[in-house]
Amino acid sequence: MASLSEWRDRMAAELDAVVAFWERHSHDPQHGGFFSCLSRDGTVYDETKYVWMQGRQVWVYSRLYRTVPRFRRPELLEAARAGGEFLLRCARLSPESPRVAFALTRDGRPVWVQRTVFSEAFCAMGLDELGRAAEEPRYRAAAREWALAVGAWARGAPQELGRPRLSGTPPQQALAVPMLVLALAQQLLEGAGGDGDLEAMAEWGAQNILLHLQRGDSVVLENVSPEGQELPGSLGRLMNPGHAMEAGWLLLWFAGRRGDAGLGARAVAALVEGPLRWGWDPHHGGLFAFLDADGHCPTQLEWNMKLWWPQAEAMVALLAAYTHRPRPRLLRHFQRVAAYLFDKFRDPDHGEWFGYLSREGTVALTIKGGPFKGCFHAARSLLLCEEMLGELLQRGETPPDSPPSPQ
Amino acid sequence: MASLSEWRDRMAAELDAVVAFWERHSHDPQHGGFFSCLSRDGTVYDETKYVWMQGRQVWVYSRLYRTVPRFRRPELLEAARAGGEFLLRCARLSPESPRVAFALTRDGRPVWVQRTVFSEAFCAMGLDELGRAAEEPRYRAAAREWALAVGAWARGAPQELGRPRLSGTPPQQALAVPMLVLALAQQLLEGAGGDGDLEAMAEWGAQNILLHLQRGDSVVLENVSPEGQELPGSLGRLMNPGHAMEAGWLLLWFAGRRGDAGLGARAVAALVEGPLRWGWDPHHGGLFAFLDADGHCPTQLEWNMKLWWPQAEAMVALLAAYTHRPRPRLLRHFQRVAAYLFDKFRDPDHGEWFGYLSREGTVALTIKGGPFKGCFHAARSLLLCEEMLGELLQRGETPPDSPPSPQ
Repeated sequence: MASLSEWRDRMAAELDAVVAFWERHSHDPQHGGFFSCLSRDGTVYDETKYVWMQGRQVWVYSRLYRTVPRFRRPELLEAARAGGEFLLRCARLSPESPRVAFALTRDGRPVWVQRTVFSEAFCAMGLDELGRAAEEPRYRAAAREWALAVGAWARGAPQELGRPRLSGTPPQQALAVPMLVLALAQQLLEGAGGDGDLEAMAEWGAQNILLHLQRGDSVVLENVSPEGQELPGSLGRLMNPGHAMEAGWLLLWFAGRRGDAGLGARAVAALVEGPLRWGWDPHHGGLFAFLDADGHCPTQLEWNMKLWWPQAEAMVALLAAYTHRPRPRLLRHFQRVAAYLFDKFRDPDHGEWFGYLSREGTVALTIKGGPFKGCFHAARSLLLCEEMLGELLQRGETPPDSPPSPQ
Repeated sequence: MASLSEWRDRMAAELDAVVAFWERHSHDPQHGGFFSCLSRDGTVYDETKYVWMQGRQVWVYSRLYRTVPRFRRPELLEAARAGGEFLLRCARLSPESPRVAFALTRDGRPVWVQRTVFSEAFCAMGLDELGRAAEEPRYRAAAREWALAVGAWARGAPQELGRPRLSGTPPQQALAVPMLVLALAQQLLEGAGGDGDLEAMAEWGAQNILLHLQRGDSVVLENVSPEGQELPGSLGRLMNPGHAMEAGWLLLWFAGRRGDAGLGARAVAALVEGPLRWGWDPHHGGLFAFLDADGHCPTQLEWNMKLWWPQAEAMVALLAAYTHRPRPRLLRHFQRVAAYLFDKFRDPDHGEWFGYLSREGTVALTIKGGPFKGCFHAARSLLLCEEMLGELLQRGETPPDSPPSPQ
């Protein structure tokens, strides 16, 4: 059983290896921005540039440059800036609207548009952090405009996204939406008190995450009505343990900001310990991708696969929960999840993590990046874990001496 | 090694079991139409009605009623009619356009619209066969209208489907589109010579399937330019062995109709034997769901899963190829695929096949039906195999006496 300081050192070394992989293989010196379709060894197998991945990688590089001394290298900031400029130059579908594409050609022409708010949200997240790292207000101004548009779409103007209104479609809210609204507010509010629009977004995000806690907080439903009622069928019973845990640590941040201990305790119980109980594979380890709250088989073909990001979010959520209130079992859970992740997903030969394992834990897709995997979840979770472990060690926390208990 | 007559009897018995499953569990006596979201034992786990699945089940029931004496039961035709009437009453988005929904509520209100031609195509296929079985011309007239709309969208008016034109999106054609256009023409042309519109659709479908044969016919690419050029990136390298084999037997039908022996030989080599060579898993058996023509890892998470329908289409394609030109190795391949399918996908306890296995061949999703699996591929392939095996036995064909050779 590794100690906390051993885990802190592992997180730091792994973060270095992950960032080195993306610096070595993903940059496009010609047009700026980042390739995310990288094979196991970093070979670019597709030059499409995905807007989520651009915004996320800008965020990672900028945050590392700004907050971690060993990453304060000018070339990292320059790569982030080239990514931010690429987004500002190419992502929007027209100058009149904040709507952006989902995918761009290498030289920045739109290929595909999603009828959701996620692309704009990751533009906002990346540009805000770039503005902080580069100390250039114009990036943060662009980020704020995108963030407020996301907040408005999420809270009541979804028709601007181009989805037809159909008489049989129940009004619905996906957990990812308030989660991302809260994450955006968290990002933009750092050190910026008194911004009423952003405070309102944080409040809306937190309250709307809570609508997904159902059946006496025993489950977290991915889709509910805007009033927090269960929806019929598979859609209404869908659970995504990774999203639940990501929402968990975001809500813990919000509870800390508001000094709301009751909310913090609820987040730990329902969004951190709960998903680990119902979302963890008792036979092979790892969080499932999807589950059905009534025990039916999900219809998502990948439901029982082990994806990298739910495990990464679980590490963060468990350390955030332990930081919130240090109970030994939370640290044991963290160590179990981290040991599973480091054992199964790491690639010591080439750096960065595999993304998609079979239920049994064998590598199903050898790619290191693709349309939905870039430089984000691994790097962010390693950075946050390194930070939190450092704070715990400064506090003088010691690791638990008992082995992890089975769930 | 089972003989041809043993296989014919197995196909017939299995077809009975499959149809019994859907008759027992999928009917909605209240609104007509069919539930397709059925658990392993037939329990309805979601009441959404998928338009593809409605049209396909109407086709299966009507075709069985019309062509197989033991299925000429009034209740089967009545269920098909209730499905057809449900589609005529509820599927269209407006009376002015042939566009239909992808998913409907149980009582027929639209839930979701796809920006493709497939929903309309399966409406046409089901209604045409219902019109033949019920001997009611109005069903066939509705089918012809839908079929001609599909043909027009496929051949040059895709903007009516609501996809935005984006400057970075390369013009492209998916193999499924000409395949479905040819399948529709095949359906509607049966016994109806001299329909120029339908003959033109058949011709266009066949010629456009051939555009997907690339690199000296050594690969079948799922997406090409409308002129038959390779497209860049993962999209352009994607291969789907199940689609290739389904296109294979459709093209064999067309070659037979035209008396074009050269086209038939090309279909067998490139669309039947080829996909079995590059698409079959040498380690665990079964056709993969997706592959990359340059050997990269596909980005589809299910790429190495074994889905029921590619194996079902492979059985049909191999028997069609053998019927076209009886070479013993084709029959050996058929027996190998059929043995794999019957071993891995059948459910002797409850009937109908599992749909989604892991690469290794274990059941990954226990559902018997869902948004994309209904009463179609299993029943159609069993029916076609029973028919073709019966014809071969009448011709006096004998099974090969050598065991299957490894690929």
